[in-house]
Amino acid sequence: MRDQITEWFKSLQNNICQSLENADGSGRFHEDLWDREAGGGGRTRVLTNGDIIEKGGVNFSAVEGETPDNILKALNLPKADFYATGVSIVMHPKSPMMPIIHMNVRYFEMSNGSWWFGGGIDLTPHYVDKGDAIYFHQTLKDACDKHDPEYYPNFKKWADDYFYIKHRKETRGIGGIFFDRLTETSHHSKEQRFEFVKEIGNTFAPVYTTLMHKNSALPYSENEVSWQKLRRGRYVEFNLVLDKGTKFGLDTDGRTESILMSLPPQANWEYNYQTVPNDPEQLTLDLLKKGVDWV
Amino acid sequence: MRDQITEWFKSLQNNICQSLENADGSGRFHEDLWDREAGGGGRTRVLTNGDIIEKGGVNFSAVEGETPDNILKALNLPKADFYATGVSIVMHPKSPMMPIIHMNVRYFEMSNGSWWFGGGIDLTPHYVDKGDAIYFHQTLKDACDKHDPEYYPNFKKWADDYFYIKHRKETRGIGGIFFDRLTETSHHSKEQRFEFVKEIGNTFAPVYTTLMHKNSALPYSENEVSWQKLRRGRYVEFNLVLDKGTKFGLDTDGRTESILMSLPPQANWEYNYQTVPNDPEQLTLDLLKKGVDWV
Repeated sequence: MRDQITEWFKSLQNNICQSLENADGSGRFHEDLWDREAGGGGRTRVLTNGDIIEKGGVNFSAVEGETPDNILKALNLPKADFYATGVSIVMHPKSPMMPIIHMNVRYFEMSNGSWWFGGGIDLTPHYVDKGDAIYFHQTLKDACDKHDPEYYPNFKKWADDYFYIKHRKETRGIGGIFFDRLTETSHHSKEQRFEFVKEIGNTFAPVYTTLMHKNSALPYSENEVSWQKLRRGRYVEFNLVLDKGTKFGLDTDGRTESILMSLPPQANWEYNYQTVPNDPEQLTLDLLKKGVDWV
Repeated sequence: MRDQITEWFKSLQNNICQSLENADGSGRFHEDLWDREAGGGGRTRVLTNGDIIEKGGVNFSAVEGETPDNILKALNLPKADFYATGVSIVMHPKSPMMPIIHMNVRYFEMSNGSWWFGGGIDLTPHYVDKGDAIYFHQTLKDACDKHDPEYYPNFKKWADDYFYIKHRKETRGIGGIFFDRLTETSHHSKEQRFEFVKEIGNTFAPVYTTLMHKNSALPYSENEVSWQKLRRGRYVEFNLVLDKGTKFGLDTDGRTESILMSLPPQANWEYNYQTVPNDPEQLTLDLLKKGVDWV
């Protein structure tokens, strides 16, 4: 089944790249194939300076080998080899009126026979548009509900907790869903778990291209661009300080350029920046908290 | 003695801010006083948009309270209260021909009676100038040699190992010195350790203002500015992924804006950027490795 999952992730990468190129207009993905010295490799695809997307990556990888000790420790596992495959996406749009998006779907298998799926998708608007937020969460809820009515409420809460920048006391964006260690239970066979992961993977392109069509032509000024760069700074903080996928990649001697394609083309830090009450920037900050019920 | 050390760190902050303002010309430090809820506080001073310094901070803090569990674990210590005081500095100059500099001197005391000094100073040129690198290391060696001939060789190696960006396989800059857990030994009394830390603290202003006078008026073009922004991206990577001081600050619920004043005003990431052989950028990269003997 591992081969079947791996092949499906490859085809997901192909389909998503095609959809994003179509929606962007001029942007084209550049592909780099790479091998990991300790086993496996990947297909990194990066698009820069498109009409809508300033910098974005859609990465496929399938890596294997001895599990590093720090990861065994963190997961409380005995010494074993691992196999990990998945697709990771981050899109940084040119326009501050377009949200950043991230998706990851992954499958993990240990030589002792244990396996699990994980993944997530979350949206980081520079300016929160409530209609977009409701659309995004409703689409995820609909996808989840086809598989288990418990999925959306549980995984939405998990995303609120995961995509949280502790040291800023704010969420990265408006959240989405996050899940990990999904394995076989009396309610869910491996095939059913895989079907759910496919559903989420297939949700990405229609959701983001809809937002591209809707928002990428909205007007903005230098003021919105300055705010975008500060928000990108927070995105960098989350990814480098807190993101477990980034940490796993760097710890397992992954390809650094593929892992850090998630970073924005440019980010700014301004000491002790303060928003103006009731300005759109402050209204966005007011919504970057856990527990907002969007649907 | 703890009060004496604390007061000396405060006066060091005053003296360094004064020297930097004089050398910069127009830049002035803005001060924020802050309290830490769990005990202690600090004096953050940030200068932005000076003639030479684009963004720089000189922070004093003295914090105390219960030691967080993760830190006790990392240091292999029993449950105890801590007191930590020090000065932390990072300067991001406007010109890519000027190096970034960092210094930290700190004193740590536990309620069980143990104590130690730590610190470091390192230089991160966007373009390595060999004369400047020799001057920087020679000055540090002279300062160290007044106290112990073993200090410079040991602490220089420690800096090479500490200021190393593992996932990039490059050092952050040309290094300097780094030291930690300096406590009482048969060779070194507490007073002698403190004298050494003072010596290093007092080295900062003359060294960096010399580099400001020498380099800040050198000509440069857009090309050098682009490279500077990529190098600032690496600085962000080091500070957020690897720096223990940043981690300690965020883990002990320190003041985020004071801790992250170390981040540059702007940083760029370009996917898989490649330098041109023999260009100044590549010649700089060739020198960003451990074990270069500068003196």
